[in-house]
Amino acid sequence: MASNRATLPYALPGPQPVYAHTMTMTAHDPTVSADIATAIAVLQQRLGPRCTTGTALREQHAHTTTFLPAELPDAVAFAESAEEVQEIVRICADHRAPIIPFGTGTSLEGHVNAPLGGISIDLSRMDRVLEVHPEDLDCVVQPGVTRSALNIHLRDTGLFFPVDPGADASLGGMAATRASGTNAVRYGTMRDAVLSLKVVLPSGEMLVTGGRARKSSAGYDLTRLIVGSEGTLGVITELTLRLHGIPEAISAASCSFPDIGAACTTAIETVQCGVPVARMELLDPLSVQAVNAHSNLDLPVAPLLLMEFHGSPASVAEQAETVGALASGNGGAGFDWSADAETRSRLWQARHDAYWALRGLRPGFDIFVTDVCVPVSRLAEVVVAAQTEAESQGLIAPILGHVGDGNFHASLLIDPDRPGDRDRAVAYAGWLSALAIDAGGTCTGEHGIGQGKQAYLEPELGAAAVDTMAAIKQALDPQNIMNPGKIWPG
Amino acid sequence: MASNRATLPYALPGPQPVYAHTMTMTAHDPTVSADIATAIAVLQQRLGPRCTTGTALREQHAHTTTFLPAELPDAVAFAESAEEVQEIVRICADHRAPIIPFGTGTSLEGHVNAPLGGISIDLSRMDRVLEVHPEDLDCVVQPGVTRSALNIHLRDTGLFFPVDPGADASLGGMAATRASGTNAVRYGTMRDAVLSLKVVLPSGEMLVTGGRARKSSAGYDLTRLIVGSEGTLGVITELTLRLHGIPEAISAASCSFPDIGAACTTAIETVQCGVPVARMELLDPLSVQAVNAHSNLDLPVAPLLLMEFHGSPASVAEQAETVGALASGNGGAGFDWSADAETRSRLWQARHDAYWALRGLRPGFDIFVTDVCVPVSRLAEVVVAAQTEAESQGLIAPILGHVGDGNFHASLLIDPDRPGDRDRAVAYAGWLSALAIDAGGTCTGEHGIGQGKQAYLEPELGAAAVDTMAAIKQALDPQNIMNPGKIWPG
Repeated sequence: MASNRATLPYALPGPQPVYAHTMTMTAHDPTVSADIATAIAVLQQRLGPRCTTGTALREQHAHTTTFLPAELPDAVAFAESAEEVQEIVRICADHRAPIIPFGTGTSLEGHVNAPLGGISIDLSRMDRVLEVHPEDLDCVVQPGVTRSALNIHLRDTGLFFPVDPGADASLGGMAATRASGTNAVRYGTMRDAVLSLKVVLPSGEMLVTGGRARKSSAGYDLTRLIVGSEGTLGVITELTLRLHGIPEAISAASCSFPDIGAACTTAIETVQCGVPVARMELLDPLSVQAVNAHSNLDLPVAPLLLMEFHGSPASVAEQAETVGALASGNGGAGFDWSADAETRSRLWQARHDAYWALRGLRPGFDIFVTDVCVPVSRLAEVVVAAQTEAESQGLIAPILGHVGDGNFHASLLIDPDRPGDRDRAVAYAGWLSALAIDAGGTCTGEHGIGQGKQAYLEPELGAAAVDTMAAIKQALDPQNIMNPGKIWPG
Repeated sequence: MASNRATLPYALPGPQPVYAHTMTMTAHDPTVSADIATAIAVLQQRLGPRCTTGTALREQHAHTTTFLPAELPDAVAFAESAEEVQEIVRICADHRAPIIPFGTGTSLEGHVNAPLGGISIDLSRMDRVLEVHPEDLDCVVQPGVTRSALNIHLRDTGLFFPVDPGADASLGGMAATRASGTNAVRYGTMRDAVLSLKVVLPSGEMLVTGGRARKSSAGYDLTRLIVGSEGTLGVITELTLRLHGIPEAISAASCSFPDIGAACTTAIETVQCGVPVARMELLDPLSVQAVNAHSNLDLPVAPLLLMEFHGSPASVAEQAETVGALASGNGGAGFDWSADAETRSRLWQARHDAYWALRGLRPGFDIFVTDVCVPVSRLAEVVVAAQTEAESQGLIAPILGHVGDGNFHASLLIDPDRPGDRDRAVAYAGWLSALAIDAGGTCTGEHGIGQGKQAYLEPELGAAAVDTMAAIKQALDPQNIMNPGKIWPG
């Protein structure tokens, strides 16, 4: 694309500079200040022990799998119905108390932190699958249902929900961050998986964004506006989700490569050939080593592609054959495919556990996960550059990637006792985001902006985009009570 | 879904009632009035003969394939670059002159009408394919490139652009109305096809909504906000679009059924079985008759499914076999599939020409095309009800449908010399929209709201959704100069 973006210097901003032009968003009437204490008193009267200010629960609700420091909410309120969410939001709105929606706390960019204090609304008790419509391939769930709970619920229907971010996140949280993961190359992201939403607006009103029709041209696409809005526009209380038939045949394959470039090239060629691969994950040698240790496997310590094929038995065989030929053309060794459910399950469980496996490489270290996504044609060069730069900076940065999409994560392991480490990691993450943006990509393929990526939003999309987002935020949440301090500085 | 919508009576208000709660949007400062004449004078000075007030061109730019009466713009400005669009928008904004973006004028809901006057910006001269990235399966185009022009341009790359609304619409217009068509069941709609956009905002600023990465979680999904916004938020000046590899094998099939229900059931079962059918079109007997006459074919005059399968030769054979078995289980006769390019091309050309074929059934009559979309499980009952009701009302209403999506069109043929006809057609369309909404569907699967469907937006989505859309419109276009009178009353 003939980009109108400035080429960024590959040197970094510190974290979270504040953009003057977005500050209007938070320039509220200074004579009206939040009265969080009153809001909490009213909530406790209404919810009893389901609204708590206990330190342990507050800490747990600001705990995120991120290197960002925890910022505790003032209270945690456990909602049990959409009506209760409406009531909580109305009470908070009356007192201008910030609201932080909480699912499972597995987000990576500080989404559940409370930089301005306020009330964490815990939605984990809203965990019912309300309806399954096998004939329409959709279902209706509450936001606290997790990905794996939904798939367990669907077990006997022949259907499954494909979006799989690794963590057993809540579906409400996954929609809020526009999550994706290993299956997205075939089944899409939460953008594609959500048919419609019910959302409690900052006013307490209930917004219904759509029906159950597979497509619609009825007005602005409010479903897609809420998906990825990170809790800054409202609280999701119900999701209608697309489901897929469990494929007749599934096979997994793994293949080792002489170098990262060869593995990426194989992924790129697979996508270009139109092979409908269901998953295509890259693990660099350090990740393989971590996974072997954590999951008791003996994968060869070399760049590895882990793949899954879905389809009819004939189609799965055809896909595996095509990819096997591409892999061997790129020097891939030991391409092995198996429809054996147990082998598959072990391989993918190991991939799911990779986050914990990587942490296990350096117990006690912090972890700082990057999330760039680039056009696939640029993937090999960007991954190689990421690896080279990490080495030259002396950083431990194992790389995992959903490479069919051009999305990969370098997970920086930071020694908390060596302050220089953290600064180098932050600098590296900024450098990598700038590199991805310059390649026509994004600083976040699937984790969201949250607190951690605010510095990169304007370099990526330009001032007009950030201003447009801020204008929408201001129009829909004029008091800035919905998850303030996320996407934009608080 | 446990709908919180009221069940609608199957009788509808006349067209376009005005919702009090949306009127705030147009309640501008009454002391400032539009000065369209001055805007035109400035534009003529700037563009010379490329800004014209000639009646013929003004009529042509308000001509739409709709039953709605034409409302002419005051002038037509032919833009030749994004910078020129910015300049035109700035001039119009200075004088509060309405702006109506114009591609090919094939929209069906009065989108190019100018109920408040103003300037039609004709984008048809911005017709260049700027970049093709075969390795990333994407391309960058100007908004005036048509669907077929893009596919001709791509001819030698092995790639194609799948979204196919029938008409040879401009890609900018297709994005603006969130168009889809016959291929959507497999390849998705413009929602899925657009990777990012450049959009001139009402201020004249250029908005870039994204990069070329396949997915992103960077802030609000502005791409999807603009797709389907019907020109009410800005003028699209550039589109980055996803492409697909031309399948190795393509085959077409047709099959006749004893009744509409049996044809719909076959479509439903096909989707439920996970057959990745590329197109699946329903024609009722009257449509078949029209198509036979128009395209010199001899298809049996009975409910017909017209299908296309894409994939490897083995996969195409497998798909056809599965669907053939489903069809025969539902009493389908003469299931015939052929990979012969000429037969395919004739069948699909006939389908493309169906709009004109239907018009040919009653030369001189007006045509009024409905566009409901329902969950597929409800499709058979809604199509049968639509047919029965049309018959009982004495209406000529041939039905065509993209039935794999649950989307179908009853095309009402209206005798302009019999005033009762038009009223009956309007009442029927309202009844059908209400029926679809009540079935969990939408009043518009792919044509948009425009002027014609405003009455159904609130019944479908509720007041909170319409208010939310209006708040966004007001925030981004406070002067209401961007295609005013569309989605909401002018």
